[in-house]
Amino acid sequence: MITEATVALRPAPETTGTGVAYFPTLADAGRAVAAIIAGGLLPATLEFLDRTCVNAVEDFAHLGLRTDAGALLLFGDDGEPDATQAALARMSDACVVAGALEVTTAAQVTEAEALLAARRCTLPALSRLGALTILEDATVPRPRIAEMVERIGGIADRYSVPIATFGHAGDGNLHPTCVLQSPDDTEAVQRAELAFKDIFAAALELDGTITGEHGVGAAKLPYLAQQLGQAQMSLLRRLKAAFDPAGILNPGKLGS
Amino acid sequence: MITEATVALRPAPETTGTGVAYFPTLADAGRAVAAIIAGGLLPATLEFLDRTCVNAVEDFAHLGLRTDAGALLLFGDDGEPDATQAALARMSDACVVAGALEVTTAAQVTEAEALLAARRCTLPALSRLGALTILEDATVPRPRIAEMVERIGGIADRYSVPIATFGHAGDGNLHPTCVLQSPDDTEAVQRAELAFKDIFAAALELDGTITGEHGVGAAKLPYLAQQLGQAQMSLLRRLKAAFDPAGILNPGKLGS
Repeated sequence: MITEATVALRPAPETTGTGVAYFPTLADAGRAVAAIIAGGLLPATLEFLDRTCVNAVEDFAHLGLRTDAGALLLFGDDGEPDATQAALARMSDACVVAGALEVTTAAQVTEAEALLAARRCTLPALSRLGALTILEDATVPRPRIAEMVERIGGIADRYSVPIATFGHAGDGNLHPTCVLQSPDDTEAVQRAELAFKDIFAAALELDGTITGEHGVGAAKLPYLAQQLGQAQMSLLRRLKAAFDPAGILNPGKLGS
Repeated sequence: MITEATVALRPAPETTGTGVAYFPTLADAGRAVAAIIAGGLLPATLEFLDRTCVNAVEDFAHLGLRTDAGALLLFGDDGEPDATQAALARMSDACVVAGALEVTTAAQVTEAEALLAARRCTLPALSRLGALTILEDATVPRPRIAEMVERIGGIADRYSVPIATFGHAGDGNLHPTCVLQSPDDTEAVQRAELAFKDIFAAALELDGTITGEHGVGAAKLPYLAQQLGQAQMSLLRRLKAAFDPAGILNPGKLGS
Protein backbone atom coordinates (compact mmCIF):
# COMPACT_ATOMS: atom_id res chain seq x y z
CA MET A 1 0.00 0.00 0.00
CA ILE A 2 1.80 3.11 -1.23
CA THR A 3 0.37 6.39 0.03
CA GLU A 4 3.11 8.72 -1.10
CA ALA A 5 6.18 8.51 -3.32
CA THR A 6 9.09 10.91 -3.53
CA VAL A 7 11.18 10.48 -6.65
CA ALA A 8 14.69 11.63 -7.45
CA LEU A 9 15.10 12.85 -11.00
CA ARG A 10 18.29 11.93 -12.79
CA PRO A 11 19.43 14.00 -15.75
CA ALA A 12 18.66 12.56 -19.18
CA PRO A 13 21.85 11.18 -20.76
CA GLU A 14 23.50 13.36 -23.42
CA THR A 15 23.56 10.49 -25.91
CA THR A 16 22.63 6.83 -26.05
CA GLY A 17 24.17 4.11 -28.18
CA THR A 18 22.81 0.66 -28.98
CA GLY A 19 24.28 -2.41 -30.62
CA VAL A 20 23.19 -5.92 -31.49
CA ALA A 21 25.19 -9.13 -31.69
CA TYR A 22 24.10 -12.58 -32.93
CA PHE A 23 25.61 -15.74 -31.46
CA PRO A 24 25.49 -19.47 -32.29
CA THR A 25 23.92 -20.23 -28.88
CA LEU A 26 22.43 -18.38 -25.90
CA ALA A 27 25.27 -19.77 -23.76
CA ASP A 28 27.74 -17.99 -26.10
CA ALA A 29 25.83 -14.75 -25.51
CA GLY A 30 26.06 -15.45 -21.78
CA ARG A 31 29.83 -15.72 -22.07
CA ALA A 32 29.92 -12.39 -23.91
CA VAL A 33 27.96 -10.85 -21.03
CA ALA A 34 30.42 -12.24 -18.49
CA ALA A 35 33.34 -10.82 -20.53
CA ILE A 36 31.69 -7.38 -20.82
CA ILE A 37 31.12 -7.18 -17.07
CA ALA A 38 34.55 -8.63 -16.23
CA GLY A 39 36.09 -5.97 -18.51
CA GLY A 40 34.85 -3.27 -16.18
CA LEU A 41 31.97 -1.95 -18.28
CA LEU A 42 28.64 -1.07 -16.68
CA PRO A 43 26.28 -1.07 -19.69
CA ALA A 44 22.96 0.74 -19.53
CA THR A 45 21.41 -2.00 -21.67
CA LEU A 46 22.33 -5.68 -21.81
CA GLU A 47 19.46 -7.91 -22.89
CA PHE A 48 19.40 -11.27 -24.57
CA LEU A 49 16.89 -13.33 -26.50
CA ASP A 50 17.20 -16.94 -27.58
CA ARG A 51 16.31 -18.12 -31.07
CA THR A 52 12.66 -18.85 -30.25
CA CYS A 53 12.27 -15.34 -28.84
CA VAL A 54 13.99 -13.70 -31.83
CA ASN A 55 11.75 -15.58 -34.25
CA ALA A 56 8.61 -14.72 -32.29
CA VAL A 57 9.59 -11.05 -32.20
CA GLU A 58 10.43 -11.01 -35.92
CA ASP A 59 7.09 -12.65 -36.83
CA PHE A 60 5.31 -10.11 -34.62
CA ALA A 61 7.13 -6.90 -35.48
CA HIS A 62 8.97 -7.46 -38.80
CA LEU A 63 12.11 -5.60 -37.79
CA GLY A 64 14.49 -7.47 -40.07
CA LEU A 65 16.11 -9.44 -37.25
CA ARG A 66 18.33 -12.33 -38.23
CA THR A 67 16.36 -15.50 -37.43
CA ASP A 68 18.97 -18.20 -38.09
CA ALA A 69 21.20 -17.42 -35.09
CA GLY A 70 20.93 -19.11 -31.71
CA ALA A 71 20.77 -15.89 -29.74
CA LEU A 72 20.65 -12.13 -29.95
CA LEU A 73 22.38 -9.83 -27.48
CA LEU A 74 21.25 -6.22 -27.34
CA PHE A 75 23.79 -3.93 -25.71
CA GLY A 76 23.95 -0.22 -25.11
CA ASP A 77 25.24 2.61 -23.03
CA ASP A 78 24.55 6.26 -22.48
CA GLY A 79 26.28 9.41 -21.29
CA GLU A 80 28.90 11.73 -22.74
CA PRO A 81 29.20 11.06 -26.52
CA ASP A 82 32.86 9.95 -26.69
CA ALA A 83 32.56 7.77 -23.59
CA THR A 84 29.40 6.15 -24.97
CA GLN A 85 31.07 5.35 -28.30
CA ALA A 86 34.14 3.97 -26.52
CA ALA A 87 31.95 1.72 -24.35
CA LEU A 88 29.99 0.48 -27.39
CA ALA A 89 33.24 -0.33 -29.20
CA ARG A 90 34.52 -2.33 -26.23
CA MET A 91 31.22 -4.24 -25.95
CA SER A 92 31.36 -5.01 -29.68
CA ASP A 93 34.91 -6.32 -29.28
CA ALA A 94 33.88 -8.52 -26.34
CA CYS A 95 31.07 -10.02 -28.47
CA VAL A 96 33.49 -10.78 -31.33
CA VAL A 97 35.93 -12.45 -28.94
CA ALA A 98 33.05 -14.53 -27.46
CA GLY A 99 32.30 -15.86 -30.95
CA ALA A 100 29.57 -13.57 -32.24
CA LEU A 101 28.37 -14.36 -35.77
CA GLU A 102 27.72 -10.68 -36.46
CA VAL A 103 27.94 -7.43 -34.49
CA THR A 104 26.46 -4.10 -35.53
CA THR A 105 25.91 -0.83 -33.72
CA ALA A 106 22.87 1.25 -34.51
CA ALA A 107 23.81 4.13 -36.80
CA GLN A 108 20.53 5.95 -36.38
CA VAL A 109 18.43 6.74 -33.35
CA THR A 110 15.39 5.23 -35.09
CA GLU A 111 17.28 1.97 -35.62
CA ALA A 112 18.25 1.88 -31.93
CA GLU A 113 14.65 2.53 -30.93
CA ALA A 114 13.48 -0.34 -33.15
CA LEU A 115 15.96 -2.67 -31.45
CA LEU A 116 14.84 -1.63 -27.99
CA ALA A 117 11.21 -1.97 -29.06
CA ALA A 118 12.03 -5.51 -30.21
CA ARG A 119 13.24 -6.38 -26.74
CA ARG A 120 10.14 -4.89 -25.15
CA CYS A 121 7.73 -6.87 -27.33
CA THR A 122 9.35 -10.24 -26.55
CA LEU A 123 6.72 -11.33 -24.06
CA PRO A 124 3.65 -10.33 -26.14
CA ALA A 125 5.29 -11.92 -29.19
CA LEU A 126 5.91 -15.18 -27.32
CA SER A 127 2.41 -15.16 -25.86
CA ARG A 128 0.93 -15.32 -29.38
CA LEU A 129 2.44 -18.81 -29.79
CA GLY A 130 -0.13 -20.44 -27.48
CA ALA A 131 -3.00 -19.91 -25.06
CA LEU A 132 -1.07 -20.28 -21.79
CA THR A 133 2.14 -18.39 -21.01
CA ILE A 134 4.15 -19.19 -17.88
CA LEU A 135 6.91 -16.62 -17.35
CA GLU A 136 9.49 -16.81 -14.57
CA ASP A 137 12.46 -14.76 -13.42
CA ALA A 138 15.07 -17.12 -12.01
CA THR A 139 18.26 -15.13 -11.55
CA VAL A 140 21.90 -16.12 -11.16
CA PRO A 141 25.21 -14.25 -10.68
CA ARG A 142 26.28 -12.90 -14.06
CA PRO A 143 29.33 -15.14 -14.48
CA ARG A 144 26.98 -18.16 -14.27
CA ILE A 145 24.45 -17.07 -16.89
CA ALA A 146 25.89 -19.38 -19.57
CA GLU A 147 25.69 -22.34 -17.18
CA MET A 148 22.11 -21.49 -16.18
CA VAL A 149 21.04 -21.18 -19.80
CA GLU A 150 22.44 -24.65 -20.49
CA ARG A 151 20.62 -26.05 -17.46
CA ILE A 152 17.32 -24.55 -18.63
CA GLY A 153 17.82 -26.20 -22.01
CA GLY A 154 18.44 -29.57 -20.39
CA ILE A 155 15.39 -29.23 -18.12
CA ALA A 156 13.12 -28.29 -21.05
CA ASP A 157 14.29 -31.38 -22.92
CA ARG A 158 13.83 -33.61 -19.87
CA TYR A 159 10.18 -32.62 -19.41
CA SER A 160 9.47 -32.16 -23.14
CA VAL A 161 8.18 -28.62 -22.68
CA PRO A 162 8.97 -25.67 -24.94
CA ILE A 163 10.91 -23.09 -22.92
CA ALA A 164 12.16 -19.93 -24.60
CA THR A 165 14.52 -17.69 -22.64
CA PHE A 166 15.16 -13.99 -22.74
CA GLY A 167 16.38 -11.75 -19.98
CA HIS A 168 18.15 -8.81 -18.48
CA ALA A 169 21.66 -10.15 -18.83
CA GLY A 170 23.24 -7.22 -17.02
CA ASP A 171 21.50 -8.38 -13.84
CA GLY A 172 21.74 -12.13 -14.42
CA ASN A 173 17.95 -12.02 -14.57
CA LEU A 174 16.58 -14.73 -16.88
CA HIS A 175 13.01 -15.07 -18.10
CA PRO A 176 12.49 -18.70 -19.03
CA THR A 177 9.06 -18.68 -20.64
CA CYS A 178 6.90 -21.69 -21.38
CA VAL A 179 4.07 -21.23 -23.87
CA LEU A 180 1.53 -24.07 -23.98
CA GLN A 181 -1.25 -24.53 -26.49
CA SER A 182 -4.03 -24.90 -23.94
CA PRO A 183 -4.49 -24.35 -20.21
CA ASP A 184 -6.75 -27.40 -20.26
CA ASP A 185 -3.91 -29.76 -21.14
CA THR A 186 -3.32 -30.55 -17.45
CA GLU A 187 -0.66 -33.13 -18.25
CA ALA A 188 1.43 -30.52 -20.14
CA VAL A 189 0.83 -27.90 -17.44
CA GLN A 190 2.07 -30.38 -14.83
CA ARG A 191 5.22 -31.09 -16.84
CA ALA A 192 5.83 -27.33 -17.11
CA GLU A 193 5.41 -26.93 -13.35
CA LEU A 194 7.93 -29.70 -12.69
CA ALA A 195 10.31 -28.07 -15.16
CA PHE A 196 10.07 -24.71 -13.35
CA LYS A 197 10.61 -26.46 -10.02
CA ASP A 198 13.89 -27.80 -11.41
CA ILE A 199 14.74 -24.37 -12.86
CA PHE A 200 14.36 -22.76 -9.43
CA ALA A 201 16.50 -25.51 -7.87
CA ALA A 202 19.15 -24.89 -10.56
CA ALA A 203 19.13 -21.15 -9.86
CA LEU A 204 19.68 -21.82 -6.13
CA GLU A 205 22.46 -24.32 -6.88
CA LEU A 206 24.21 -21.61 -8.88
CA ASP A 207 23.96 -19.17 -5.93
CA GLY A 208 21.01 -17.41 -7.51
CA THR A 209 17.47 -16.60 -6.47
CA ILE A 210 13.97 -17.80 -7.32
CA THR A 211 12.99 -14.27 -8.28
CA GLY A 212 15.01 -11.40 -9.67
CA GLU A 213 12.28 -8.80 -9.98
CA HIS A 214 8.77 -10.31 -10.11
CA GLY A 215 8.52 -11.14 -6.42
CA VAL A 216 7.38 -14.31 -4.68
CA GLY A 217 3.62 -13.93 -4.63
CA ALA A 218 1.51 -17.06 -4.21
CA ALA A 219 3.07 -19.13 -6.99
CA LYS A 220 6.62 -19.18 -5.65
CA LEU A 221 5.87 -19.24 -1.93
CA PRO A 222 6.63 -23.00 -1.73
CA TYR A 223 10.16 -22.30 -3.01
CA LEU A 224 10.93 -19.41 -0.71
CA ALA A 225 11.82 -21.50 2.35
CA GLN A 226 14.14 -23.54 0.12
CA GLN A 227 16.05 -20.36 -0.65
CA LEU A 228 15.95 -18.63 2.72
CA GLY A 229 15.72 -21.33 5.38
CA GLN A 230 13.34 -21.37 8.35
CA ALA A 231 15.15 -18.72 10.44
CA GLN A 232 14.82 -16.12 7.69
CA MET A 233 11.22 -17.17 7.00
CA SER A 234 10.39 -16.49 10.66
CA LEU A 235 12.13 -13.13 10.46
CA LEU A 236 10.07 -12.22 7.37
CA ARG A 237 6.88 -13.11 9.27
CA ARG A 238 7.94 -10.89 12.18
CA LEU A 239 8.73 -8.04 9.78
CA LYS A 240 5.34 -8.42 8.12
CA ALA A 241 3.70 -8.22 11.55
CA ALA A 242 5.74 -5.11 12.42
CA PHE A 243 4.43 -3.25 9.37
CA ASP A 244 0.95 -4.77 9.53
CA PRO A 245 0.04 -5.52 13.16
CA ALA A 246 -3.65 -5.96 12.26
CA GLY A 247 -2.87 -8.44 9.45
CA ILE A 248 -4.94 -6.58 6.86
CA LEU A 249 -2.36 -6.13 4.10
CA ASN A 250 -2.24 -8.87 1.44
CA PRO A 251 -3.79 -11.43 3.79
CA GLY A 252 -3.42 -15.17 3.22
CA LYS A 253 0.17 -14.91 2.00
CA LEU A 254 3.42 -15.24 3.93
CA GLY A 255 2.28 -13.32 6.98
CA SER A 256 -0.66 -15.54 7.78
CA MET B 1 25.85 -7.30 14.51
CA ILE B 2 27.29 -8.20 11.13
CA THR B 3 28.15 -11.87 10.66
CA GLU B 4 28.82 -11.87 6.93
CA ALA B 5 29.21 -9.28 4.20
CA THR B 6 29.04 -9.78 0.44
CA VAL B 7 30.51 -6.91 -1.51
CA ALA B 8 30.09 -5.94 -5.14
CA LEU B 9 33.26 -4.68 -6.75
CA ARG B 10 32.98 -1.77 -9.12
CA PRO B 11 35.68 -1.19 -11.69
CA ALA B 12 38.24 1.50 -10.83
CA PRO B 13 37.58 4.63 -12.92
CA GLU B 14 39.86 5.18 -15.92
CA THR B 15 40.74 8.68 -14.78
CA THR B 16 39.86 11.08 -12.00
CA GLY B 17 39.86 14.86 -12.09
CA THR B 18 39.74 17.30 -9.18
CA GLY B 19 39.25 21.04 -8.94
CA VAL B 20 39.07 23.66 -6.23
CA ALA B 21 37.11 26.92 -6.10
CA TYR B 22 37.24 29.69 -3.50
CA PHE B 23 34.16 31.79 -2.71
CA PRO B 24 33.45 34.92 -0.66
CA THR B 25 31.06 32.96 1.61
CA LEU B 26 30.00 29.39 2.27
CA ALA B 27 26.50 30.30 1.11
CA ASP B 28 28.01 31.26 -2.29
CA ALA B 29 29.62 27.82 -2.45
CA GLY B 30 26.21 26.33 -1.61
CA ARG B 31 24.71 28.17 -4.57
CA ALA B 32 27.46 26.78 -6.84
CA VAL B 33 26.58 23.28 -5.62
CA ALA B 34 22.90 23.85 -6.40
CA ALA B 35 23.84 25.07 -9.91
CA ILE B 36 26.12 22.08 -10.54
CA ILE B 37 23.40 19.61 -9.56
CA ALA B 38 20.67 21.52 -11.40
CA GLY B 39 22.88 21.46 -14.52
CA GLY B 40 22.57 17.69 -14.64
CA LEU B 41 26.04 16.79 -13.39
CA LEU B 42 26.54 13.95 -10.91
CA PRO B 43 30.00 14.72 -9.49
CA ALA B 44 32.04 12.01 -7.80
CA THR B 45 33.38 14.62 -5.35
CA LEU B 46 31.66 17.76 -4.06
CA GLU B 47 32.91 18.86 -0.66
CA PHE B 48 33.00 22.24 0.97
CA LEU B 49 34.85 23.86 3.86
CA ASP B 50 34.19 27.22 5.44
CA ARG B 51 36.96 29.69 6.24
CA THR B 52 37.60 28.35 9.74
CA CYS B 53 37.99 24.83 8.34
CA VAL B 54 40.30 25.98 5.52
CA ASN B 55 42.51 27.85 7.99
CA ALA B 56 42.62 24.91 10.39
CA VAL B 57 43.55 22.53 7.56
CA GLU B 58 46.23 24.91 6.25
CA ASP B 59 47.77 25.31 9.72
CA PHE B 60 47.74 21.53 10.11
CA ALA B 61 48.90 20.36 6.68
CA HIS B 62 50.59 23.36 4.97
CA LEU B 63 49.13 22.65 1.54
CA GLY B 64 49.23 26.22 0.28
CA LEU B 65 45.45 26.72 0.53
CA ARG B 66 44.15 30.26 0.18
CA THR B 67 43.12 31.34 3.67
CA ASP B 68 41.49 34.70 2.93
CA ALA B 69 38.38 33.33 1.20
CA GLY B 70 35.10 32.57 2.94
CA ALA B 71 34.81 29.04 1.60
CA LEU B 72 36.50 26.36 -0.44
CA LEU B 73 34.63 23.97 -2.73
CA LEU B 74 36.42 20.82 -3.80
CA PHE B 75 34.87 19.21 -6.87
CA GLY B 76 35.75 16.23 -8.97
CA ASP B 77 34.60 13.50 -11.27
CA ASP B 78 35.89 10.24 -12.65
CA GLY B 79 35.41 7.93 -15.61
CA GLU B 80 36.34 8.08 -19.27
CA PRO B 81 39.02 10.80 -19.77
CA ASP B 82 37.12 13.12 -22.16
CA ALA B 83 33.89 12.89 -20.18
CA THR B 84 35.75 13.60 -16.94
CA GLN B 85 37.43 16.69 -18.40
CA ALA B 86 34.11 17.91 -19.83
CA ALA B 87 32.41 17.49 -16.42
CA LEU B 88 35.25 19.34 -14.65
CA ALA B 89 35.00 22.21 -17.13
CA ARG B 90 31.25 22.49 -16.56
CA MET B 91 31.71 22.47 -12.78
CA SER B 92 34.39 25.16 -13.08
CA ASP B 93 32.02 27.28 -15.17
CA ALA B 94 29.22 26.85 -12.61
CA CYS B 95 31.58 28.04 -9.85
CA VAL B 96 32.57 31.12 -11.86
CA VAL B 97 28.91 31.97 -12.50
CA ALA B 98 28.16 31.54 -8.77
CA GLY B 99 30.79 34.18 -7.99
CA ALA B 100 33.93 32.16 -7.27
CA LEU B 101 37.01 34.26 -6.45
CA GLU B 102 39.28 31.70 -8.09
CA VAL B 103 38.85 28.29 -9.75
CA THR B 104 41.62 25.85 -10.59
CA THR B 105 41.67 22.24 -11.67
CA ALA B 106 44.45 19.97 -10.50
CA ALA B 107 47.03 19.52 -13.24
CA GLN B 108 48.82 16.66 -11.55
CA VAL B 109 47.58 13.57 -9.77
CA THR B 110 49.72 14.48 -6.75
CA GLU B 111 48.05 17.89 -6.55
CA ALA B 112 44.60 16.28 -6.65
CA GLU B 113 45.60 13.84 -3.94
CA ALA B 114 46.81 16.74 -1.76
CA LEU B 115 43.43 18.45 -2.19
CA LEU B 116 41.51 15.30 -1.27
CA ALA B 117 43.83 14.77 1.69
CA ALA B 118 43.03 18.32 2.81
CA ARG B 119 39.36 17.48 2.89
CA ARG B 120 39.98 14.30 4.85
CA CYS B 121 42.03 16.03 7.54
CA THR B 122 39.40 18.69 8.24
CA LEU B 123 38.07 17.08 11.41
CA PRO B 124 41.47 16.30 12.98
CA ALA B 125 42.63 19.81 12.04
CA LEU B 126 39.58 21.40 13.68
CA SER B 127 39.93 19.20 16.77
CA ARG B 128 43.36 20.70 17.45
CA LEU B 129 41.67 24.06 18.11
CA GLY B 130 40.27 22.97 21.49
CA ALA B 131 39.76 20.14 23.95
CA LEU B 132 36.12 19.31 23.12
CA THR B 133 34.83 18.74 19.58
CA ILE B 134 31.10 18.37 18.92
CA LEU B 135 30.48 17.26 15.32
CA GLU B 136 27.02 16.85 13.81
CA ASP B 137 25.60 15.86 10.43
CA ALA B 138 22.40 17.82 9.86
CA THR B 139 21.41 17.34 6.24
CA VAL B 140 19.12 19.26 3.88
CA PRO B 141 18.03 18.93 0.25
CA ARG B 142 20.85 20.23 -1.95
CA PRO B 143 19.00 23.30 -3.24
CA ARG B 144 18.67 24.47 0.39
CA ILE B 145 22.32 24.14 1.40
CA ALA B 146 22.98 27.89 1.09
CA GLU B 147 19.96 28.65 3.29
CA MET B 148 21.03 26.08 5.89
CA VAL B 149 24.56 27.46 5.98
CA GLU B 150 23.17 30.94 6.68
CA ARG B 151 20.95 29.55 9.43
CA ILE B 152 23.91 27.81 11.09
CA GLY B 153 25.81 31.11 11.06
CA GLY B 154 22.90 32.92 12.69
CA ILE B 155 22.52 30.22 15.35
CA ALA B 156 26.25 30.28 16.19
CA ASP B 157 26.05 34.05 16.66
CA ARG B 158 22.90 33.79 18.78
CA TYR B 159 24.51 31.39 21.26
CA SER B 160 28.02 32.85 20.96
CA VAL B 161 29.59 29.50 20.12
CA PRO B 162 32.24 28.93 17.46
CA ILE B 163 30.75 26.66 14.77
CA ALA B 164 32.80 25.78 11.71
CA THR B 165 31.06 23.96 8.88
CA PHE B 166 32.30 21.55 6.25
CA GLY B 167 30.39 18.86 4.47
CA HIS B 168 29.56 16.55 1.64
CA ALA B 169 27.79 19.09 -0.51
CA GLY B 170 26.77 16.55 -3.16
CA ASP B 171 24.50 14.93 -0.55
CA GLY B 172 23.39 18.09 1.25
CA ASN B 173 25.21 16.63 4.25
CA LEU B 174 26.64 19.38 6.49
CA HIS B 175 29.04 18.91 9.37
CA PRO B 176 28.61 21.90 11.67
CA THR B 177 31.41 21.44 14.20
CA CYS B 178 31.79 23.21 17.50
CA VAL B 179 35.21 23.18 19.14
CA LEU B 180 35.29 24.31 22.76
CA GLN B 181 38.38 24.97 24.85
CA SER B 182 37.35 22.74 27.75
CA PRO B 183 34.73 20.04 28.43
CA ASP B 184 34.58 21.43 31.97
CA ASP B 185 33.14 24.73 30.83
CA THR B 186 29.60 23.50 31.41
CA GLU B 187 28.08 26.86 30.57
CA ALA B 188 29.71 26.84 27.11
CA VAL B 189 28.79 23.19 26.57
CA GLN B 190 25.18 24.02 27.38
CA ARG B 191 25.17 26.90 24.87
CA ALA B 192 26.59 24.52 22.24
CA GLU B 193 23.86 21.97 22.98
CA LEU B 194 21.17 24.63 22.60
CA ALA B 195 22.77 25.72 19.33
CA PHE B 196 22.71 22.17 17.95
CA LYS B 197 19.09 21.79 19.05
CA ASP B 198 18.29 24.83 16.89
CA ILE B 199 20.42 23.47 14.05
CA PHE B 200 18.42 20.23 14.02
CA ALA B 201 15.17 22.21 14.09
CA ALA B 202 16.42 24.29 11.14
CA ALA B 203 17.32 21.15 9.17
CA LEU B 204 13.80 19.76 9.73
CA GLU B 205 12.23 23.09 8.74
CA LEU B 206 14.16 22.92 5.46
CA ASP B 207 12.82 19.38 4.80
CA GLY B 208 16.06 17.83 5.94
CA THR B 209 17.05 15.26 8.54
CA ILE B 210 18.80 15.27 11.91
CA THR B 211 21.38 12.83 10.56
CA GLY B 212 22.76 12.30 7.08
CA GLU B 213 25.21 9.50 7.81
CA HIS B 214 26.25 9.32 11.47
CA GLY B 215 23.04 7.78 12.77
CA VAL B 216 20.89 8.68 15.74
CA GLY B 217 22.62 6.91 18.61
CA ALA B 218 22.00 8.14 22.14
CA ALA B 219 22.78 11.83 21.57
CA LYS B 220 20.11 12.50 18.94
CA LEU B 221 17.40 10.16 20.20
CA PRO B 222 15.46 13.11 21.74
CA TYR B 223 15.23 14.69 18.25
CA LEU B 224 14.13 11.57 16.39
CA ALA B 225 10.45 11.74 17.34
CA GLN B 226 10.45 15.37 16.24
CA GLN B 227 11.51 14.23 12.77
CA LEU B 228 9.47 11.04 12.44
CA GLY B 229 6.37 11.44 14.60
CA GLN B 230 4.98 8.86 17.05
CA ALA B 231 3.52 6.47 14.45
CA GLN B 232 6.91 5.97 12.80
CA MET B 233 8.62 5.72 16.18
CA SER B 234 6.28 2.85 17.08
CA LEU B 235 7.00 1.18 13.75
CA LEU B 236 10.75 1.44 14.41
CA ARG B 237 10.26 -0.21 17.81
CA ARG B 238 8.30 -3.07 16.21
CA LEU B 239 11.01 -3.50 13.56
CA LYS B 240 13.69 -3.61 16.24
CA ALA B 241 11.69 -6.30 18.03
CA ALA B 242 11.31 -8.27 14.79
CA PHE B 243 15.08 -8.45 14.31
CA ASP B 244 15.87 -8.78 18.03
CA PRO B 245 13.02 -10.59 19.79
CA ALA B 246 15.17 -11.21 22.88
CA GLY B 247 16.16 -7.52 23.14
CA ILE B 248 19.88 -8.25 23.37
CA LEU B 249 21.19 -6.02 20.56
CA ASN B 250 22.22 -2.48 21.54
CA PRO B 251 20.00 -2.52 24.65
CA GLY B 252 18.86 0.68 26.33
CA LYS B 253 18.37 2.57 23.09
CA LEU B 254 15.27 2.98 20.94
CA GLY B 255 14.03 -0.58 21.31
CA SER B 256 13.80 -0.53 25.07
